[in-house]
Amino acid sequence: MDLTGLIESGMDAVEASGLLMNVMWTMLGAFLVYFMQAGFAMCEAGFTRAKNTGNILMKNMMDFVLGSLFFFVFGFAIMHGTDFNGIIGVKGFFDPTSLADADGMFNGLPIGVFIIFHTVFCATAATIVSGSMAERTKFAAYLVYSAAISIFIYPVTGHWIWGGGWLSSMGFHDFAGSTAVHMVGGICALVGAKILGVRIGKYGKDGKPRAIPGHNLPIAALGVFILWFCWFGFNCGSTTAATTSLGDIAMTTNLAAAAATLMAMIVTWVRYGKPDVSMTFNGSLAGLVAITAGCDVVSNWAAIIIGAVAGILVVFSVEFFDKVAKIDDPVGAISVHGVCGATGTILTGVFASDVDFLTQVIGVASVMAYVLVLAFIIFTLIDKTIGLRVSEQEEREGLDAHEHGSSAYADFNFRL
Amino acid sequence: MDLTGLIESGMDAVEASGLLMNVMWTMLGAFLVYFMQAGFAMCEAGFTRAKNTGNILMKNMMDFVLGSLFFFVFGFAIMHGTDFNGIIGVKGFFDPTSLADADGMFNGLPIGVFIIFHTVFCATAATIVSGSMAERTKFAAYLVYSAAISIFIYPVTGHWIWGGGWLSSMGFHDFAGSTAVHMVGGICALVGAKILGVRIGKYGKDGKPRAIPGHNLPIAALGVFILWFCWFGFNCGSTTAATTSLGDIAMTTNLAAAAATLMAMIVTWVRYGKPDVSMTFNGSLAGLVAITAGCDVVSNWAAIIIGAVAGILVVFSVEFFDKVAKIDDPVGAISVHGVCGATGTILTGVFASDVDFLTQVIGVASVMAYVLVLAFIIFTLIDKTIGLRVSEQEEREGLDAHEHGSSAYADFNFRL
Amino acid sequence: MDLTGLIESGMDAVEASGLLMNVMWTMLGAFLVYFMQAGFAMCEAGFTRAKNTGNILMKNMMDFVLGSLFFFVFGFAIMHGTDFNGIIGVKGFFDPTSLADADGMFNGLPIGVFIIFHTVFCATAATIVSGSMAERTKFAAYLVYSAAISIFIYPVTGHWIWGGGWLSSMGFHDFAGSTAVHMVGGICALVGAKILGVRIGKYGKDGKPRAIPGHNLPIAALGVFILWFCWFGFNCGSTTAATTSLGDIAMTTNLAAAAATLMAMIVTWVRYGKPDVSMTFNGSLAGLVAITAGCDVVSNWAAIIIGAVAGILVVFSVEFFDKVAKIDDPVGAISVHGVCGATGTILTGVFASDVDFLTQVIGVASVMAYVLVLAFIIFTLIDKTIGLRVSEQEEREGLDAHEHGSSAYADFNFRL
Repeated sequence: MDLTGLIESGMDAVEASGLLMNVMWTMLGAFLVYFMQAGFAMCEAGFTRAKNTGNILMKNMMDFVLGSLFFFVFGFAIMHGTDFNGIIGVKGFFDPTSLADADGMFNGLPIGVFIIFHTVFCATAATIVSGSMAERTKFAAYLVYSAAISIFIYPVTGHWIWGGGWLSSMGFHDFAGSTAVHMVGGICALVGAKILGVRIGKYGKDGKPRAIPGHNLPIAALGVFILWFCWFGFNCGSTTAATTSLGDIAMTTNLAAAAATLMAMIVTWVRYGKPDVSMTFNGSLAGLVAITAGCDVVSNWAAIIIGAVAGILVVFSVEFFDKVAKIDDPVGAISVHGVCGATGTILTGVFASDVDFLTQVIGVASVMAYVLVLAFIIFTLIDKTIGLRVSEQEEREGLDAHEHGSSAYADFNFRL
Repeated sequence: MDLTGLIESGMDAVEASGLLMNVMWTMLGAFLVYFMQAGFAMCEAGFTRAKNTGNILMKNMMDFVLGSLFFFVFGFAIMHGTDFNGIIGVKGFFDPTSLADADGMFNGLPIGVFIIFHTVFCATAATIVSGSMAERTKFAAYLVYSAAISIFIYPVTGHWIWGGGWLSSMGFHDFAGSTAVHMVGGICALVGAKILGVRIGKYGKDGKPRAIPGHNLPIAALGVFILWFCWFGFNCGSTTAATTSLGDIAMTTNLAAAAATLMAMIVTWVRYGKPDVSMTFNGSLAGLVAITAGCDVVSNWAAIIIGAVAGILVVFSVEFFDKVAKIDDPVGAISVHGVCGATGTILTGVFASDVDFLTQVIGVASVMAYVLVLAFIIFTLIDKTIGLRVSEQEEREGLDAHEHGSSAYADFNFRL
Repeated sequence: MDLTGLIESGMDAVEASGLLMNVMWTMLGAFLVYFMQAGFAMCEAGFTRAKNTGNILMKNMMDFVLGSLFFFVFGFAIMHGTDFNGIIGVKGFFDPTSLADADGMFNGLPIGVFIIFHTVFCATAATIVSGSMAERTKFAAYLVYSAAISIFIYPVTGHWIWGGGWLSSMGFHDFAGSTAVHMVGGICALVGAKILGVRIGKYGKDGKPRAIPGHNLPIAALGVFILWFCWFGFNCGSTTAATTSLGDIAMTTNLAAAAATLMAMIVTWVRYGKPDVSMTFNGSLAGLVAITAGCDVVSNWAAIIIGAVAGILVVFSVEFFDKVAKIDDPVGAISVHGVCGATGTILTGVFASDVDFLTQVIGVASVMAYVLVLAFIIFTLIDKTIGLRVSEQEEREGLDAHEHGSSAYADFNFRL
């Protein structure tokens, strides 16, 4: 129903106007968050090797596909269905639209608007993992994981934070999902990469890590630009309403990302002697992830600080996982989404006057614990049944040739 | 005029609010539908060979350019001008804004908003054809075709369906253009590819088709992600109004696309032993095309079924044109847009309670017949005058070198 | 605050509705203008050589990053802060939000909305320059320039035109920035390229220019499609309000771009014997730049003429700088943004009834003079201190290897 229709059906004119504006704004947010899939796909494809490009593209596509379907059938009910003791939703399976009230509304929006918005958020969490597990994960195993995160992992902690669960009751503040989306994805990325093991050739005989450079920086950079663009929808769209604060949210988002990019560049310049391209672009994402929790409640200067911290941290975190923890994360997803997601959520408790620091820490810690355990169980189960990892031959010759019988660059010669 | 201006000029406040919201929403839709041009360009470039990349990019650009100009000068008048017997519009040539009423309005929108929205739809139909005719069509011939579809083909059947013509009077339901846009483009693609003949080397001496793989899967995949993103504008924007149903339309659109992608992947996995990258991504488009007609009137589960049907069908349809009909369609445009466009329109008559099945069949059949005949006449005329096809040498050495004197990848060596 | 909140806080319902609609529309514009960064990055990367790709991507990222930070800290105050004699703004440094009134408003919008919108415009001007200075500029020098344009150049002339300065008082009409954004960027591009000198190998011993083709046409074309898409946000968003004229602005924008593309293609076809891919795509940008000043006040047919002029002019202008002036501009930025920006602004005075031709000329000339002088000073200072240009060895072997220690295409062999 359009404005006239709503008013004719008895709704107050102001309420109807407000509702339709909120619908438009939330839809725009949903569209942009969907388009993050393109950003992640280009980023992950560009930062890995040419022989695995078709495979990583397929994984990025399929985690969205399975996420969309499984979140519709199961996930939404668990996340937003009738609450059971603050822990889990228990109603709305198979047809989440059944949760709507008599006017078709749910949480102040027409339920279709609400579901599509949360669907694309769920799929964002899911797609983060393909990066850290790139270049060595069996395609079939990845499909099973995609279904699992969309049913068992993301919706549960999502319920705690956004679905009326115990963390939202406590006052935990995670506006657009530094924790609910990014840290959840980042922790899954950590567990997956750890269980999977390192890529062949990643470490020399001396145990030192060797750089395995991405094969296509322009598309990787394009991916980052797309993600930054869509993050305006992610953060500003999370009002799910037309408000006067949209510009403030965009400002904190943009300044944090800018500060993080700058700091990541400076740190690499100082440490490695040259400003590193890949790490600088990862710095942008680190800043965006970190500001997501508090973008609505921190000042512009606080946003710059949060971004700067994330931009510095991401460099050291990537080094830590590479050199110390020896967990092979081809695109830095664990550091960008996991470490900076947690950090940004906690820093919100430092910089926002109405957000409690301790509550933020409890929220991060409890979500982290749940996801660590669940992801460990799921990836272990997959590993013991289907098997997580491709054969050595397949890994050496490329997943495209073996898993899909094709090449991403059929007219070109490239190194395996 | 903004809201205050409209009210000062005498418009009722509610009416003015509704109007401006509808304007914003329709404009967003138009922007996103424009951006489909990027999606088609990347898809078609990525799924064809490196030696023809500059040429396919040029064709994608020029069909939009000529479409924009000719639709403004002629097409809009034929599609939306004063109706003549339900068959054709006959007023508004050279300045379609002259069709507006005294307040500058047309069909409930400021006429500029209405024209730009329909311009980008027309150009979408036009650009579909470049894919099926890729790698062997003369550039000049393609330009003539682009003008022709924007004047003689798309606006006529568009008038029948959306311009107040006989099909709209009958109650034919094609919400966002499974038939009006995609099937029209797909049938032109079929006729063009058939008259043009197969690419050199497409069939072996035994008559069996040989795969000619695309040269750049990341940009092809990017194209599909862009198209999926923009399809939210295509389908949700087709309300041309801010309504409470936008979320429902986005949900059916997304679920159909997801189901189609999944089914295309499964079918290729079963038939060819491995999940095929190109076909899976084509499956996404097949689902999007199919749901476009009924995205506003079918349920979420019906959308999943329509998508699943399209995802299965597209694989067999591509095989049929390849192996049986021996019509060489480098990117699968005939199957994706033609076959799935027709199927989705007809299935709307199966799943939507208020849509008549027979009317849907009549609509599809009559549009198909008109486009088949007109496209046959136009492509034959072009073939007999300018000539549709490049020389054998040009085809072997690449259209970029011969038609444009350049290479799309000047710093790289690639196979011809 | 959402609609209900605004009304409860005492705002009139109509005013509140109008405000939130304007906020949404301006935010959408800001998002799209941000995304132009991706368009410029892809364009410039694609139209230059593979050995410098990482470097040009970094420059495109960093000019946005530094632009965002420095415009926030200094630039906004100079552009929009309290006016001093029509020449410069002098208040709002370090915290531009302090310029807001008691309700948080500035120029009719919540100040955050206003700042983010102008931030992305500033960064657009900044990023134009990286193209003309590509393939030979020191990275550190480029960073200093990026800061300088965001503080000393763009905000000053921006103040004259849009910040309540003397040109706006005179009635100078530059709706969305043909002059304020594009010509400013284009003149900086000219001065930078001139001081920097030509690339090694650009001119033969006979003094004749040699084509140095771009290495990746698909991403360059993608860049142009992205820019065209985002230009709808650039031009339509510059209303900073929901109005009934949005469709008219989109129509003039689109028709001018289409006419320019067509004419650029025709001119190259006639002059060089074949329709040139790169120049045709540059033609699109030329038309978009030219229509930006007058897109709100010229008719559709005037837009076609303005576009056609720009499309013809850009070809001859590129030839002029190449053959006569011998200023090496790898992507044609001077011609597209500088020449067509000036031309479009002046042609607005020809075609729009309420715009004074002489005022347009004065505006263009004075902005040109200021930017020429300031850019000359800044680039000369950088050249004499840090040094603008990389070493000959670095230029020959590629900026990626020397400035960043990496390759943009690690798995491929490409020509240096």
